[in-house]
Amino acid sequence: MSGFRVGTMLVVGVGLIGGSFAMALKRAGAVERVIGYGRSRGNLERARQLGVIDELCESPVAGAAQADLVFLGVPVGAMAPVFEAIAPVLGANTVVTDGGSTKSRLLAEARASLGPAFGRFVPGHPIAGSERSGVEAATADLYRDHKVLLTPAADTDVDAVQLVRAAWTASGATVEIMDAEDHDRILGRTSHLPHMLAYGLVDYIAGCEDAERCFELAAGGFLDFTRIASSDPVMWRDICLDNRDQLARSLQQYIEKLEDMRQSVLQADASGLQTLFARARESRNRVLDRRKEGGR
Amino acid sequence: MSGFRVGTMLVVGVGLIGGSFAMALKRAGAVERVIGYGRSRGNLERARQLGVIDELCESPVAGAAQADLVFLGVPVGAMAPVFEAIAPVLGANTVVTDGGSTKSRLLAEARASLGPAFGRFVPGHPIAGSERSGVEAATADLYRDHKVLLTPAADTDVDAVQLVRAAWTASGATVEIMDAEDHDRILGRTSHLPHMLAYGLVDYIAGCEDAERCFELAAGGFLDFTRIASSDPVMWRDICLDNRDQLARSLQQYIEKLEDMRQSVLQADASGLQTLFARARESRNRVLDRRKEGGR
Repeated sequence: MSGFRVGTMLVVGVGLIGGSFAMALKRAGAVERVIGYGRSRGNLERARQLGVIDELCESPVAGAAQADLVFLGVPVGAMAPVFEAIAPVLGANTVVTDGGSTKSRLLAEARASLGPAFGRFVPGHPIAGSERSGVEAATADLYRDHKVLLTPAADTDVDAVQLVRAAWTASGATVEIMDAEDHDRILGRTSHLPHMLAYGLVDYIAGCEDAERCFELAAGGFLDFTRIASSDPVMWRDICLDNRDQLARSLQQYIEKLEDMRQSVLQADASGLQTLFARARESRNRVLDRRKEGGR
Repeated sequence: MSGFRVGTMLVVGVGLIGGSFAMALKRAGAVERVIGYGRSRGNLERARQLGVIDELCESPVAGAAQADLVFLGVPVGAMAPVFEAIAPVLGANTVVTDGGSTKSRLLAEARASLGPAFGRFVPGHPIAGSERSGVEAATADLYRDHKVLLTPAADTDVDAVQLVRAAWTASGATVEIMDAEDHDRILGRTSHLPHMLAYGLVDYIAGCEDAERCFELAAGGFLDFTRIASSDPVMWRDICLDNRDQLARSLQQYIEKLEDMRQSVLQADASGLQTLFARARESRNRVLDRRKEGGR
C-alpha cells in the first residue's frame, strides 16, 4: 500500500501484539529488517524460528541504536524504563510507538523519560487482541480491518504521526487520531471495566463453597462472558494502575447501576427490569448492525 | 437409543427451546406426533412448515387432552396459568415437564396449580440455548452433549422422572437429577448473574454522554462479553423475578467483590490486583481444561 517502507524496526516485547505487528509489516513488504528484544530468550528464539523477527538483540539499547522505528509491545508498566534506557541512543529521525491499552499516563511518562525524542513518540493502541499471549499467538492478520487509535500530544511531530499511521495502514488497520484522555475514559468503560467484571465474576464464584459444582454446571454463555478473564494478569494489572482514575470512576458508576438492578430484583419490579433488558438488547443489537454495515 | 418412544407430545411455546426439543425427539424417532401451541400464530405456522410440529392447536387445553407428554417452553412467569388450565384435562398417565431456567418457585406453583397431576410434573432445565429466540433458531442439535438438570420433588412419580430422562437422553443430552434450591442458587451465580452484568454494562454505557463513541470503539471482547445481553427481555424478566432471592444475594456478594476491586484500583494495589487476576485466570482455564477432557 502506498509504497510505505521503513528500514530497521526494533520490537521490544515480541508477543501477540508486537509479533503480529512485525508479521503484518513483513507480509506487506513494509519493513526491511526486524530486530527483537524480550525478557524470555526462549520466546525470542521461537520468534526468530517463526520468521517474526530477523535478529535478536541483548538489550533495548543495542537494538534502538540501529532502529528507524521502535515498537513497544510490553505491558504499559514496563515501558517507562525502556524509554529512559533508549532515549540517549535514538537517531535524530527514529520514531517510537507502542501498542499499550492506556495512553494518558504513558504520554506523561514518555515526556519525562524520552527528553528531546519525545516529539517523535506516537502513542498507539490497536483495538484487537486475544486472551492468548506470546509469539505463538501472533498472526499477520490480527489487525486487518481493526481500528488503531493514535493519541499524539499537541507537540508531537506531524511526520512521526504520519509514519506510524502509514505503518498501521500497511498492516491492514484503520487509524484514528484521538485525545489520550478521551481514549482512557472510553476504553476504561468498554474494555478495562469488562475485564474487571469478568475477572471478578470468576473469582467470586471460585470463592463460593460449592465452586466446583458451579463451574461444572456453567453454560456456554458463562465461558463466552469470562473469555477475557483468561487474559494476561500482568498486562491487566498495569492497565488498571495506569488508568486507575477513569477505571475507578467507571467501576463506581457501574456498581450504582448494579445496585439499582438489585433493588429492582428485590422489589420484583417486573416492568423496570423488562424495560432495562429491552433497552440494553436494543443498544447492543444496534452496535452489531452497524458493525455489519461497516465491515467490522 | 434404548427404544424410547412417546405417542403424542404437546409443546406449549414452540421457540428455540421447545422447538429444538421437538426436532431432536423427531430425529431420534422418539415421538409419534407433536402438537404445538403458542401465542404467535405466525410462529406456529412457520413451525409446521418447518416440520418442527405436526399440528397446531387453539389452546393448551385442546392439546393437553390428547397428550402423553406436555413440554412447556414458555417464559417461567407464563407457566402457572398453563398448569391451571390443563390440570383438569390431563390423562392419568400424562407427564408434564418444562425447559425453564428457574425451578424452586415453579415447583411450588406447579404443586398449587396441577392438583393430583403434580406427581407427574418433572421440572427440567436444559443447559443450552442461545441469545436468539423463535422457532427459526431451533435445531435438532441444540442439546447434543449438553447437560439437562431435572429437579423433581420428593413426591414426584419415579416413572415420570424416568420418562423425561429418557426423552432428554434420546435428544442427545446428559441428564442429572438435583435439588431445586441447589439448582437456583448455582444457576443464579453462573447464569442469571452474568446476564444481569451484561445487560447492566450495555445499559450503563448506553447512558453515558459519549455512548455512540464508546460503542464505535468497542472491541471484540466487548461483543463477546455482552452477547447474552441480546437475550429475550421477557424471559429474563421472569427468571429474575422467579429466582429473586438467590439472585439478589449473588448480586450483593458480587457488588462487594467489585467494591474491593475498586479499592485495589484506587490504592494502586499492584500485587492484590495481579493475584486476583492470576487466580481467576487459573480457575477459568481449569474449567476449560475439564470441558476438553469431558467432551464439553
